[in-house]
Amino acid sequence: MKRIAFLCVAVVMVAGAVALTTSASGHSDEEAAPVYGVRVPHGYRDWRLVSVARVGDPLNDLRAKLGNDIAIKAYREGKLPFPDGAIIARLAWQQVTSETIKNAFRVRGGTETHLSPEQVEKLADGSFVSGSPTNVQFMVKDSKKYASTGGWGFAQFNDGKPADEATHKTCFSCHEPAKDGDFVFTRYAP
Amino acid sequence: MKRIAFLCVAVVMVAGAVALTTSASGHSDEEAAPVYGVRVPHGYRDWRLVSVARVGDPLNDLRAKLGNDIAIKAYREGKLPFPDGAIIARLAWQQVTSETIKNAFRVRGGTETHLSPEQVEKLADGSFVSGSPTNVQFMVKDSKKYASTGGWGFAQFNDGKPADEATHKTCFSCHEPAKDGDFVFTRYAP
Repeated sequence: MKRIAFLCVAVVMVAGAVALTTSASGHSDEEAAPVYGVRVPHGYRDWRLVSVARVGDPLNDLRAKLGNDIAIKAYREGKLPFPDGAIIARLAWQQVTSETIKNAFRVRGGTETHLSPEQVEKLADGSFVSGSPTNVQFMVKDSKKYASTGGWGFAQFNDGKPADEATHKTCFSCHEPAKDGDFVFTRYAP
Repeated sequence: MKRIAFLCVAVVMVAGAVALTTSASGHSDEEAAPVYGVRVPHGYRDWRLVSVARVGDPLNDLRAKLGNDIAIKAYREGKLPFPDGAIIARLAWQQVTSETIKNAFRVRGGTETHLSPEQVEKLADGSFVSGSPTNVQFMVKDSKKYASTGGWGFAQFNDGKPADEATHKTCFSCHEPAKDGDFVFTRYAP
């Protein structure tokens, strides 16, 4: 019995050490992206929603921005610049058509709304859901480490693999027009 | 000193009782929606993301589906039907144009991509961000309470106020085409 108790304590201690290691690093063990050295942050898919967006042809994607706790708190308090430690994730998926949803619009449109059949068809044609993921991007705030790029480090991963150096060299110049918003385009969606 | 300690204990006990009351009810004190009696679930804006979508003209909105812990677990494990207690929230915002983002596309498109100016303009024209919120909808799984509507209770709130009875009477018929997915249209977006 004592041995079992000892084993249990040992297991809990090892589990605790593993948990500490994971949360101390705060990111996956996968490869760091070039230029800024950002890795995929651990558990980012569980972060809270900042907002959603859509990008037109030829990208044709649907996007969600998620924020870690520091980023969400800053967004909700309207604090700019974002404090160190804030991370914003941009997920994107190809926009695809759902015939099930289109048919639902047609059924409902035909019986319960004031839309004409032509209007319902237009609504259905312009409706999309998310398909395959395209890539994931991160903005990591560290005002000292990334002082020359507005305090932000940028990264893009395609299926867990970092995009190339050339891609990462375009990040900051693209975000410069959002200087008034601390180089972040996305506003919080209530 | 003893009195302070006693006061602290009392404060903690009261705080605990308040916390219990809040989490036991699990929803706001605002008005329940007609037909299904669903109230706005407490803290739903903090729930994790299921997926995103866009609905065409004349609605022209961008959408996010969030799930409570039970819903997200079921989604990730691919479990159908959803277990009792699962709640899915559908948030929606008017799609609006961001001139800042459009200009960023133009700058980047003109210098760093292989898109022609016409292609960049098309991409910018089809790009939108979320504007004002429109309404919020919920699907609440309770297989006994809502046995006659696939086990789901439905609700729509506009700025915290429930939509009318007529609106709520359309919910289930609209979701019926998604019967194979337990009356839920939205798939989990990885």
